[in-house]
Amino acid sequence: MATSAKCLSQGSPAPGPVPKGKIRLYSMRFCPFAQRTRLILHAKGIKHDTININLKDKPDWFLEKNPFGLVPVLETPAGQVIYESPITCEYLDEVYPGRKLIPSDPYEKAQQKMLLEHFSKLTPYFYKIPMAQKNGEDTSEMEGELKLKLGKFNEILSKKKSKFFGGDAVSMIDYMIWPWFERIEILSLKHCLDSSPELTSWTERMMEDPAVKAASTDTETCRGFYKTYTEGKPNYDYGL
Amino acid sequence: MATSAKCLSQGSPAPGPVPKGKIRLYSMRFCPFAQRTRLILHAKGIKHDTININLKDKPDWFLEKNPFGLVPVLETPAGQVIYESPITCEYLDEVYPGRKLIPSDPYEKAQQKMLLEHFSKLTPYFYKIPMAQKNGEDTSEMEGELKLKLGKFNEILSKKKSKFFGGDAVSMIDYMIWPWFERIEILSLKHCLDSSPELTSWTERMMEDPAVKAASTDTETCRGFYKTYTEGKPNYDYGL
Repeated sequence: MATSAKCLSQGSPAPGPVPKGKIRLYSMRFCPFAQRTRLILHAKGIKHDTININLKDKPDWFLEKNPFGLVPVLETPAGQVIYESPITCEYLDEVYPGRKLIPSDPYEKAQQKMLLEHFSKLTPYFYKIPMAQKNGEDTSEMEGELKLKLGKFNEILSKKKSKFFGGDAVSMIDYMIWPWFERIEILSLKHCLDSSPELTSWTERMMEDPAVKAASTDTETCRGFYKTYTEGKPNYDYGL
Repeated sequence: MATSAKCLSQGSPAPGPVPKGKIRLYSMRFCPFAQRTRLILHAKGIKHDTININLKDKPDWFLEKNPFGLVPVLETPAGQVIYESPITCEYLDEVYPGRKLIPSDPYEKAQQKMLLEHFSKLTPYFYKIPMAQKNGEDTSEMEGELKLKLGKFNEILSKKKSKFFGGDAVSMIDYMIWPWFERIEILSLKHCLDSSPELTSWTERMMEDPAVKAASTDTETCRGFYKTYTEGKPNYDYGL
């Protein structure tokens, strides 16, 4: 099944077993968390099929696979199920050959995980600000907070003097945080990067990465989806 | 410095560098998250010193080490700092010799991490229920939810037919969830285990583990601390 398949909803028949030699991703085309896993699948060249899930009307069999009801979920031909985006990405990096995306040095690895914890305090703004704007609320305070938090990432990169967060090559942490930067313009939050020149340059370098290119959705389709999303009626099949 | 040292507060001078051949833990004697790290330090027999932090009146130098302001924090003789309990535990398991506590199989490892995600939805009850009881609120609904969630862990153990969550020996996941079970009686929540016989047997087996014994605090001291805690005036040096 292709990445661009229409999503499956409540009542859809459960998909069959995963073909040998492949891994299956349960995804949603516009979900930033699922995009993390898509980035790793592409970065490591892993053969996979994709099943998109209607997150507002989930099939029962999907909830059996992941009781949290969230994407991404991975499923192996042996029927093993893995969910939660950082866990899926680490699993893929460990199981599949190719360049390792997670540093082998335990302290560098811990540093990437701590950075991800900091980033997880930042992602809610990408939801809260557009929602508040939709409701006509003043979002200047929240935008200021986001700008400040992005500034910390700019500072880290600036101190490291490296092209990416884990050194001069793209590594796990870059892919883990990328999906929100890809959406920053669509969500009208790009001005929050104004005082973060190193971070802005990082986004430009990231856009040149083959996995980032392969896992991206075109801006207009993304914009169209987010319009339906902030209106409270997300069209997960937007553009298909 | 001993595990039982009095805590350091705002204005305390910053401690010197970590002695060679040791690792330092910034902790709080009654914190369940810091206890995770203490369990791993004991399980692996790692030489360490401990500095307890007054979490209501934190020294500035502590906030510089961990901007989240939480314990546990590890510090190495090289000045490397690691925080967030699962990250500290994984770091210790990777860096120090001895029996590995995290499974080497990527799927088993992912399973332990998913289980930890489920457990993290359960820990807030150990705070919310006692606080609500202190305020004279009816907590029967929350207690029912906790009972149900603990029942899921009982079911997992029952299906696995193993002594511990990762097999017949104690492994990382057991230590990660243990601190809350150690407090279940003190917090008057033991009845929430009434329909979970396998989980109850697991708690009894855990109490026989040498690291669990070494990292525990005696019940009366713990009870005394939690009294000051629910009253809103935590005495982090209770019993010293």
